[in-house]
Amino acid sequence: MTYCIAVRLDDGLVFVSDTRTNAGVDNVGTYRKLHVFTPAPDRLFVLQSAGNLATTQEVLDRIRRDLVDPQVAENLATVDHLFEAALYVGAISQEVTKAHSGAFKTTRDATATFIVGGQVGDEAPDILLVYPEGNYIRASDDRPFLQIGETKYGKYMLEIGIHTGVDFVTGLKVVLSSMMSTSRSNVSVGPPYDIGIYETGSHQLEQFRVPPGSPALARLEHFWGDRLRDLMDQLPPISPADFAVDAN
Amino acid sequence: MTYCIAVRLDDGLVFVSDTRTNAGVDNVGTYRKLHVFTPAPDRLFVLQSAGNLATTQEVLDRIRRDLVDPQVAENLATVDHLFEAALYVGAISQEVTKAHSGAFKTTRDATATFIVGGQVGDEAPDILLVYPEGNYIRASDDRPFLQIGETKYGKYMLEIGIHTGVDFVTGLKVVLSSMMSTSRSNVSVGPPYDIGIYETGSHQLEQFRVPPGSPALARLEHFWGDRLRDLMDQLPPISPADFAVDAN
Repeated sequence: MTYCIAVRLDDGLVFVSDTRTNAGVDNVGTYRKLHVFTPAPDRLFVLQSAGNLATTQEVLDRIRRDLVDPQVAENLATVDHLFEAALYVGAISQEVTKAHSGAFKTTRDATATFIVGGQVGDEAPDILLVYPEGNYIRASDDRPFLQIGETKYGKYMLEIGIHTGVDFVTGLKVVLSSMMSTSRSNVSVGPPYDIGIYETGSHQLEQFRVPPGSPALARLEHFWGDRLRDLMDQLPPISPADFAVDAN
Repeated sequence: MTYCIAVRLDDGLVFVSDTRTNAGVDNVGTYRKLHVFTPAPDRLFVLQSAGNLATTQEVLDRIRRDLVDPQVAENLATVDHLFEAALYVGAISQEVTKAHSGAFKTTRDATATFIVGGQVGDEAPDILLVYPEGNYIRASDDRPFLQIGETKYGKYMLEIGIHTGVDFVTGLKVVLSSMMSTSRSNVSVGPPYDIGIYETGSHQLEQFRVPPGSPALARLEHFWGDRLRDLMDQLPPISPADFAVDAN
């Protein structure tokens, strides 16, 4: 499986993707799920992918081919708005899924879900989730984050930690807390983690990778787990007397 | 949906169930999902249920009917071991599901999953998860907890907080942390929460209910959310320089 998070902050965007893929427990691999396109100086796109790995790879290959094919009317270099990029990715995703769906037991098996984030020209940067059906939604203003893949395990951290006014430093901590909690709960999500930080107007992505077994990651994981355990201990004792209504 | 947790501690068992059910967002209800049976002085059973509400109710009704039907060879009063109680519940669950499955689109729609916990005679207390297929598993020694329903949102808290040696006071805090995190992440899980505490050898369950809107619950939720947010802030800043390998 997969876990990708994108966050829209006041000053820009933060992306984190895990890299674990599996086709059965005897076929576990590491694949990049955070992809960057800068097809013109005035624009930057980040694509995060979840779902069928073959579909996501073919979608990326077609996007790249479209960028150098003079016959193609629309590509990431020509779109005028981020939502057009999302629709473009969604249309390719639909084409690829349909091309192979006959060989799958259910249509669902061949699908992929994407997050498309970035900035086109002077438009505000944004993040959009592209469904397998080819349509999209934006992140909401109240909860300016999107998740794809194994979204449930780490949702709570994002719910309470990501809101308007969060800066890059805090946003990145919250997102990594969510990723570490998911990785601990589900072996199909794991490091290396690819991190991208986008500052509004820069049209460039600062990227780095958190490798598995790195001392800094181990320190983070221990800090997070140990302190969370302490925090649960610090909760006031739960006593029946505190709750007026009887259970029976 | 539903979220139920059962934990096996050194001194006994802890059970927490939410009470929210929904058949579409326009039909949300409150139903008890933690049920207690004490069919003889030497035994106590706790049943927690998730899945099709009609199936769970008919299963409970059949269990009660079996207890007063002299024609019935096996019931919760006659079983010699907790695993036999689990198989008995599983067999009834299978019968009920099969009786109604013809009217459902898929067999899956009519199924239910149960946790059966408690103590029979002098046997060690235990908790077992009964699958819709009628078979069961115990909680493991390393992670002595079971979950049914919406299990993903609150798994991390149990993973790091529940282990051998945890006492009732701490166990209850961990379990409520998991429940509050789930409820915040998914509106299909919510209070009242039914809590049961079983002390080994007592053959009696201490029960109480945490009602929605109670000041004590609000205090717990705020403490948990606020402190967790603080904890994320306290994580050391995540800097690319800390991670040796470059992302590209």
